[in-house]
Amino acid sequence: MNIGIVARLDTEDAVRLADKIVEFLQEKKINLTIDCSLSLKLGKYKEISCELEDMDVDMIMAIGGDGTILRTQNFINGKKIPIFGINMGTVGFLTEIEPEDVFSALEEVLAGNYFIEKRMQLRVCHYQELPSALNEVVIMTRKPAKMLHIEISVDDESVEELRADGLIIATPSGSTAYAMSAGGPIVDPRVNAFIIVPICPFKLGARPFVVSNQSEIKVKLLRKGKKAMAVIDGQFEEEINYMDEVIFKKSDNYAFFIRLTKAFYKRVREKLTEGGISP
Amino acid sequence: MNIGIVARLDTEDAVRLADKIVEFLQEKKINLTIDCSLSLKLGKYKEISCELEDMDVDMIMAIGGDGTILRTQNFINGKKIPIFGINMGTVGFLTEIEPEDVFSALEEVLAGNYFIEKRMQLRVCHYQELPSALNEVVIMTRKPAKMLHIEISVDDESVEELRADGLIIATPSGSTAYAMSAGGPIVDPRVNAFIIVPICPFKLGARPFVVSNQSEIKVKLLRKGKKAMAVIDGQFEEEINYMDEVIFKKSDNYAFFIRLTKAFYKRVREKLTEGGISP
Amino acid sequence: MNIGIVARLDTEDAVRLADKIVEFLQEKKINLTIDCSLSLKLGKYKEISCELEDMDVDMIMAIGGDGTILRTQNFINGKKIPIFGINMGTVGFLTEIEPEDVFSALEEVLAGNYFIEKRMQLRVCHYQELPSALNEVVIMTRKPAKMLHIEISVDDESVEELRADGLIIATPSGSTAYAMSAGGPIVDPRVNAFIIVPICPFKLGARPFVVSNQSEIKVKLLRKGKKAMAVIDGQFEEEINYMDEVIFKKSDNYAFFIRLTKAFYKRVREKLTEGGISP
Amino acid sequence: MNIGIVARLDTEDAVRLADKIVEFLQEKKINLTIDCSLSLKLGKYKEISCELEDMDVDMIMAIGGDGTILRTQNFINGKKIPIFGINMGTVGFLTEIEPEDVFSALEEVLAGNYFIEKRMQLRVCHYQELPSALNEVVIMTRKPAKMLHIEISVDDESVEELRADGLIIATPSGSTAYAMSAGGPIVDPRVNAFIIVPICPFKLGARPFVVSNQSEIKVKLLRKGKKAMAVIDGQFEEEINYMDEVIFKKSDNYAFFIRLTKAFYKRVREKLTEGGISP
Repeated sequence: MNIGIVARLDTEDAVRLADKIVEFLQEKKINLTIDCSLSLKLGKYKEISCELEDMDVDMIMAIGGDGTILRTQNFINGKKIPIFGINMGTVGFLTEIEPEDVFSALEEVLAGNYFIEKRMQLRVCHYQELPSALNEVVIMTRKPAKMLHIEISVDDESVEELRADGLIIATPSGSTAYAMSAGGPIVDPRVNAFIIVPICPFKLGARPFVVSNQSEIKVKLLRKGKKAMAVIDGQFEEEINYMDEVIFKKSDNYAFFIRLTKAFYKRVREKLTEGGISP
Repeated sequence: MNIGIVARLDTEDAVRLADKIVEFLQEKKINLTIDCSLSLKLGKYKEISCELEDMDVDMIMAIGGDGTILRTQNFINGKKIPIFGINMGTVGFLTEIEPEDVFSALEEVLAGNYFIEKRMQLRVCHYQELPSALNEVVIMTRKPAKMLHIEISVDDESVEELRADGLIIATPSGSTAYAMSAGGPIVDPRVNAFIIVPICPFKLGARPFVVSNQSEIKVKLLRKGKKAMAVIDGQFEEEINYMDEVIFKKSDNYAFFIRLTKAFYKRVREKLTEGGISP
Repeated sequence: MNIGIVARLDTEDAVRLADKIVEFLQEKKINLTIDCSLSLKLGKYKEISCELEDMDVDMIMAIGGDGTILRTQNFINGKKIPIFGINMGTVGFLTEIEPEDVFSALEEVLAGNYFIEKRMQLRVCHYQELPSALNEVVIMTRKPAKMLHIEISVDDESVEELRADGLIIATPSGSTAYAMSAGGPIVDPRVNAFIIVPICPFKLGARPFVVSNQSEIKVKLLRKGKKAMAVIDGQFEEEINYMDEVIFKKSDNYAFFIRLTKAFYKRVREKLTEGGISP
Repeated sequence: MNIGIVARLDTEDAVRLADKIVEFLQEKKINLTIDCSLSLKLGKYKEISCELEDMDVDMIMAIGGDGTILRTQNFINGKKIPIFGINMGTVGFLTEIEPEDVFSALEEVLAGNYFIEKRMQLRVCHYQELPSALNEVVIMTRKPAKMLHIEISVDDESVEELRADGLIIATPSGSTAYAMSAGGPIVDPRVNAFIIVPICPFKLGARPFVVSNQSEIKVKLLRKGKKAMAVIDGQFEEEINYMDEVIFKKSDNYAFFIRLTKAFYKRVREKLTEGGISP
């Protein structure tokens, strides 16, 4: 077994925990591959370091927040490497365990007491294929508080035309992230659907839509002279021009996660009710 | 071909239109079967009348509102007879055409220019199997404005415990009916999911949930001494007692509808924005 | 000083606490007046008992939930007697203190360390004047899940016409009660306004309205043959017929409460976020 | 009588209409003062042109959208000059009449058949006093989709702490603008209150708050390293730093509008239901 190690580098705690995890796993004689930038930050493990996109491992431990997971998945997309997330962020919806449980959880994982959860992704095209989204694509203005004029269609049937700050096309994984903030429903990850949620629509009565993941969603910018951008999982930005179409479909690639327990709804209650603000 | 004819009987217009449709189809030498109570109301067609649940026909024309469709489907459930709905109600989300277009639409249907849309239903169990729901099951107090205390679980994972006026478990077909009024998302009929929407939850932050139609939803009444009822498609009522569980799954039976055009989102815009109130 | 004592009688705990409070106050030589039905339940204090509506006291201690407070206020309306509420209910938004703090709080009150909060009420007319509402008036169908067709106007300008399960006209005090469940905003008790919130409107885009308490609100039932009822503070019911108008204005009478601290927003966070369900 | 004339300059139609209005009024021998930039654009009326902030007139006609009105009010704030708005924008909530009715409406106004509506404004302080807001102040991130961590207090009582894209503090006039898009209630302009509406709060259960206009609202930025900006009526921007407080109170200055009819709720229905998109 070969485990890759990735961490967010902007908090000392995550870097230090990553170091301890490496030591713990090396003692157990597990083969490790360390993300280059983490190795550089630690000033160690250069001989077993590697670029994230080149990692050829059986599993990746990601020490960080949801952003770390989304970024990691983006680099390994298409490779079927499961991610085991340790929460060093404020929310940690995609991570599996809290830092205090990391070593007991690792024992479980090494003993094979885990299962792999498959999460659907969103394929995004704008002239050419863009990176897939595990959570969501947000279409928004480049300048805050300037409205877009958007037309949405599903399988070539027009759904709605609206003026709004932006639009979110989310997977069920994304239903507990930005789509939730914009007023969308909580969607169980097992549902084969996408969610369309307008951001601050200038209209009484705009509602979230849930559409099949077998459908093709098209979003078109109608307002002349307004530029927009599509932000994929908070990681990747693409500029969108007037009359451009952005097309969304189910991706052929899934994201894979190491899970120790099923607890989707428990997370919803614990992480979203009080705003998930860590003390 | 044998066409069954059903109508709502509480408005003169629907009864009169049903009569005209019968005459129109008889002139075309189509075999007809008339719902007993309609035949009685018209004082005609006794020789070709039959109880709705015994109808052995290729298609049923239902002249009325969504209530007429729901009632008809309830009687023929399990039989794969498609329904062709003529809107004589205030909303008519499940009906296919408006009364002014009935004869030209009938010509199209007789010429075979239609397709059949399949709609998923909800199987409901409370000690024993109850009638399936095409739109929704509403669990509510017997006395208005008295709150229920409800526990919801999905595949035996607890989702939420809440106090509310009631709870709606809806199919995608029901997402544009009562579930919409209670704040649920619009769900495309092609999505394989159910929607759980609390009615007036006494809590900041209760949200609609969308769950897979492969899941089993359990609803349990927690408040001692409070009786509730489950109302299926507005047609059938069942009393629910303290600590009772009501279980929801995908039904094996579908409802079938004659459609001339695909226009789900057009209906949403036209029928729900202004409240669908006919003049 | 003369203190009146009222309690909910359907829970042993409230009755027992009321008894202890009476003993505590008698030891302090405070003149007391006990609500007749409480005296009867306790089998004591007959010589100092009195009907609630006849109480001539400086303050009333109400041991119970929000229902107890609303019922008490209803009986003493117009009299300017402040209520000191001890929470023996599930929520207790209108009560001031929790039962464990009752004796220390009483010491404070007897020492004069309190202030009086004045709360606005809603005057309700339907042919004749009905009891005023401290929280809200709910207009709803007599049969659950049957929609009303309602017209709302403010100072004779038509606001909206809608079909809904019902309608809430609430004071700011009521904004944290049923109006909150139906989706209304949280309104600070110092705001001179009423809130109009539809219950499950059958329309995309019905929104809560906030109107001045100097305005006159008129609600008219448009649907023929449907009877409705107006429920005032969950205490009083009045039948409403087709084409009837119910008229709402600011009441000349206020409700008065003994307060030890200002904590409106703290209550909102504590009592409404988790649904206020006591363990 | 002396009438000032202002117009948006980015659409030909508004400029042309302004020219016609000037001719119409000159024929009636009305004294006019033309906004400098409009005079420049038209290449006429230089002798009667003047900077907007220096206009000493009895009334200003503003030909444009809500942005034109907000900008005009901003320049004349404190002067009690009523604005008469002609809608050449997409929504026109603050304008009084549509362009096709301009000349008949002018006849009415010249005949004195109008009344003046007074609208409350919001005073904004951030170290020093900033321009007042007629509609709203939006506090948001400088970079879209990055959350702020905000603490809100009213009269020094903490209301809520939340993470969100931003926060809107609006007057009743602003309740039909951006605050409506973010999910706020519709507030009648006669209500003496402000509305606090979070933009995409990352929390289940954040609700709009309505607070008295006698209260002082304080908003504090809690997240280290994040810069934000306050945007006043979409016209004026101010940078806000970590731990800065922005303070909101009722302004001593009102905005004044020429009105021919009372039609607040009619506007809500007509301009907001269909998104107010002009063809």
